[in-house]
Amino acid sequence: MTDLILSLDVTDRSEALRIAAAVAPEADAIKVGYPLVLAAGLGIAHDLAELGLPLIADFKVADIPNTNTLICEQVFAAGFSAVIAQGFPGPDSVLACVDAARAAGGECYVVAEMSHPGARTFFSEGVPERLCAIVAETGADGIIAPATRPERVRALREQVGTKKILSPGIGAQGGDPAAIAALVDGMIVGRSIYGAEDPAAAARAYAPYRR
Amino acid sequence: MTDLILSLDVTDRSEALRIAAAVAPEADAIKVGYPLVLAAGLGIAHDLAELGLPLIADFKVADIPNTNTLICEQVFAAGFSAVIAQGFPGPDSVLACVDAARAAGGECYVVAEMSHPGARTFFSEGVPERLCAIVAETGADGIIAPATRPERVRALREQVGTKKILSPGIGAQGGDPAAIAALVDGMIVGRSIYGAEDPAAAARAYAPYRR
Repeated sequence: MTDLILSLDVTDRSEALRIAAAVAPEADAIKVGYPLVLAAGLGIAHDLAELGLPLIADFKVADIPNTNTLICEQVFAAGFSAVIAQGFPGPDSVLACVDAARAAGGECYVVAEMSHPGARTFFSEGVPERLCAIVAETGADGIIAPATRPERVRALREQVGTKKILSPGIGAQGGDPAAIAALVDGMIVGRSIYGAEDPAAAARAYAPYRR
Repeated sequence: MTDLILSLDVTDRSEALRIAAAVAPEADAIKVGYPLVLAAGLGIAHDLAELGLPLIADFKVADIPNTNTLICEQVFAAGFSAVIAQGFPGPDSVLACVDAARAAGGECYVVAEMSHPGARTFFSEGVPERLCAIVAETGADGIIAPATRPERVRALREQVGTKKILSPGIGAQGGDPAAIAALVDGMIVGRSIYGAEDPAAAARAYAPYRR
């Protein structure tokens, strides 16, 4: 199964709800980041959860363990079903997110690699592999790895085995669903769906890769 | 000048406002993290800003440049005067925060080192020094470095020169203000003030180190 995950990167509450409602029948999950939550309040998770899809909090949580716990407890209480954490604060910080996820029956994913140019500064030289080791050690559910680099996704698959890989950067950012769908568990698509004139139709275009 | 910065790590809105109002006359700035903002809404920044102190968003922003921009624009529009970013996502991600700060007449600080046990996994082997180089390269205003390790703060002072160092971990976490105040520009104190029966009196105890 390769899920289609809508990255709902808009900051207007009503626009977010309108797009999410239109795309929901064509998608398997919705991912929300801080820009929307800061603008609309954490309560938007409750409204989005009513669409019946898993809701992923892409907060790239990156603090000390106790603060991570406080953030994640609120994330799950608000109606999210998964959280995305950064792994570089270390295994105890990740474990705090995993524990909060488990307590709520939810999931936790760790960023293993990012695709913007500056990411090469630190997400290199074996660091993504060490982040995958933290995923194994903490019992996290999987990793985030960029669809724009299928060869890296393939290498990280070796590291994470049957854990899930969710892959952003498909569509507007250049990731090719035909090249990436078979390698990952979730295709994360943002702009090319939410920015389309007909977001539902744009989402339907990914149907052949949703297996 | 060594500022006293209240780390307002509570999650109840009215408790936060009560403590902040009581401590404001004894402090130089207030630092707020995601747990409070998620619980109370970003609008709490407006209420806190009315106390007349600089307000620091300790969001440890750690995303791609465009998302960092969207987060920081909202931070400054809400009334914050500074933001704390993680440097791990790389120089372009930090620069996005610095640019948003500059556009709003605000400041941006980068986490150079963290003090929880797991932080040793990645914040080691020259990484804090590389993060300090990113501070110089992006024109960020300074770094965050742990008061629990004065010898590291001293080493990082060599790296950042006259840029500011703000230092958490003082008080309940073990950092000694007598050992750290002369090394840094801001002492960040949380629990030993907000958790005290008389937070204002607890803050006044730091007056000898506020120079």
